[in-house]
Amino acid sequence: MPEVRKDPVLERWVIVSEERSGRPLTIPEPEAVTDPSTCPFCPGNESETLPEIAACRAPGTRPDEPGWRVRVIPNKYPAVRRDAAPIESEDAPFERMAGLGHHEVIIEGEAHTRSLSELPVERLREVVGVYRDRLRALSDDDRIKSALIIKNVGAAAGASIEHSHSQLIATPVLPPAIEDELACTERAAAVLGGCPWCGLIDREQDRGERIVAIGEELVALCPWAARQPYETWILPRGHQSHFETASDATLDALSVLLSRVLRGIETCMSHPPYNLAIHSAPYPIASREHLHWRITILPRVTRIAGYEQATGLYINPVAPERAAAAIRNSLGEG
Amino acid sequence: MPEVRKDPVLERWVIVSEERSGRPLTIPEPEAVTDPSTCPFCPGNESETLPEIAACRAPGTRPDEPGWRVRVIPNKYPAVRRDAAPIESEDAPFERMAGLGHHEVIIEGEAHTRSLSELPVERLREVVGVYRDRLRALSDDDRIKSALIIKNVGAAAGASIEHSHSQLIATPVLPPAIEDELACTERAAAVLGGCPWCGLIDREQDRGERIVAIGEELVALCPWAARQPYETWILPRGHQSHFETASDATLDALSVLLSRVLRGIETCMSHPPYNLAIHSAPYPIASREHLHWRITILPRVTRIAGYEQATGLYINPVAPERAAAAIRNSLGEG
Repeated sequence: MPEVRKDPVLERWVIVSEERSGRPLTIPEPEAVTDPSTCPFCPGNESETLPEIAACRAPGTRPDEPGWRVRVIPNKYPAVRRDAAPIESEDAPFERMAGLGHHEVIIEGEAHTRSLSELPVERLREVVGVYRDRLRALSDDDRIKSALIIKNVGAAAGASIEHSHSQLIATPVLPPAIEDELACTERAAAVLGGCPWCGLIDREQDRGERIVAIGEELVALCPWAARQPYETWILPRGHQSHFETASDATLDALSVLLSRVLRGIETCMSHPPYNLAIHSAPYPIASREHLHWRITILPRVTRIAGYEQATGLYINPVAPERAAAAIRNSLGEG
Repeated sequence: MPEVRKDPVLERWVIVSEERSGRPLTIPEPEAVTDPSTCPFCPGNESETLPEIAACRAPGTRPDEPGWRVRVIPNKYPAVRRDAAPIESEDAPFERMAGLGHHEVIIEGEAHTRSLSELPVERLREVVGVYRDRLRALSDDDRIKSALIIKNVGAAAGASIEHSHSQLIATPVLPPAIEDELACTERAAAVLGGCPWCGLIDREQDRGERIVAIGEELVALCPWAARQPYETWILPRGHQSHFETASDATLDALSVLLSRVLRGIETCMSHPPYNLAIHSAPYPIASREHLHWRITILPRVTRIAGYEQATGLYINPVAPERAAAAIRNSLGEG
């Protein structure tokens, strides 16, 4: 059963999940599944996944059969489980708790595509709607502190199955980076008297040089202190803390902008592997109002080596102003 | 010229270093140099590196010629530079400073070996002595806040040249993870009235199940909240904050233990790529006494995917108790 452990000095949480108890001690990185005939996420192979949790499907079709356009299933090798056994013993200073939570997979189309950018915009709209709905549905589970949607595209970005999908991971602890973001945001909000992200978006708009694209609802930009080449963020221009409360109008705009920005990045960087994450304020929805949700897109063009891993100090060889200009110039070509 | 930028909300520093200004915007990961005849770190090819900063060499041999056993050179593509131009303009909220610092490469033997474990113990002793001496030498530069020694073994761990080497990166800011470690340690020290690492080592010794090896001077263990499979730490058993003040006796013991532990990990995991880092208290040496230096060894057997990157919450599929037992069992076989 998974458990969540806290480092006695460093205070950071780690999920220890030995779900595959029979697996060998040497863990070979699995080969990515790229053949549609054996792909468990392709229609016709529904029986190879656990029973579906939700789906967008054609009228008259049945769960776990073809006819779906977006399909949500439990992860077969979950990092956390909704039925994790409680931890009885306390053994200070070695703090731990049950690995309670939800680990879902969102299959983003019946076609065996790789990147979200290959979906027509109206299909991408349905996908981001499912992201919102699943985050909203899990907000009812009061054992959960935080949930994130993340996406790995390409084996180098950690995808073990090529077919376009995202994961939702909901945990009983605040992940360290989310806790930091919250603390920084609240500290800045106390000084500024309001959301620091809203102020930052205004400043970036004034400067212009790091803006990738801007619309009425949303802005895409390469952040001032980008950690990796071509790191791109999408944020709502008006204040919104939780992605799960985004309006239909915001999601309409998001599907258009996200598709455009991904195509721009893929054009100017020859379809790199990438990671995408939706950073949203922790649960419950009526709290942490100062956080401002954002989508981060991190093309994987440099390796995360020992220095970055040990120090958290990233060395970025491409200034974000140059990255933003390059993506902007590619927006028309995608 | 490199600069160091601070995220306006998230407060984290990033090094932006476009040293190779002519490089293409698409950055292909370089192929690792594995052929000794073209290896810039092999003897006879000294002219392909920048002039050496220090070396352990045979009597009568001259700098930048063969005869060395350990050779320290400036990194050809430095993340930070000792002569970085000062930043004149302030442009709030976009904080930045000159990318001042030192980025050195320590070539760890004349033979084209890959891992530190391939060195005889007396040669490894010379290498860790050079680590200490370089960290000590740079502590005189009062523009520097922190220096780390890191090592990438194997292309998957970020090594672009196979020949065994480490890097020393000294920065004008505290890297985020080091700042966190310092804050956590000082918080715990205030509660406990002493170094929390010393207390932790005692508890681990009582439990025993996560101990890999223990000697009079040092202990090797898999930490309670290990972030990755087989993550192993080596710490001095008595309190020592700064690696650069380690005694000769400590370094004698370290070369024996490090060699043994690396061989154990390599035996039980079939020579994985790995990252090694020396976490040491920031400069100046007479400060931050509560931090306790440690060496972290992180075999790279799972990819750092989108979730870990976005959240800092690692999912570890191998419990550290099981990892420690496996490494312990392999110690005799190496």
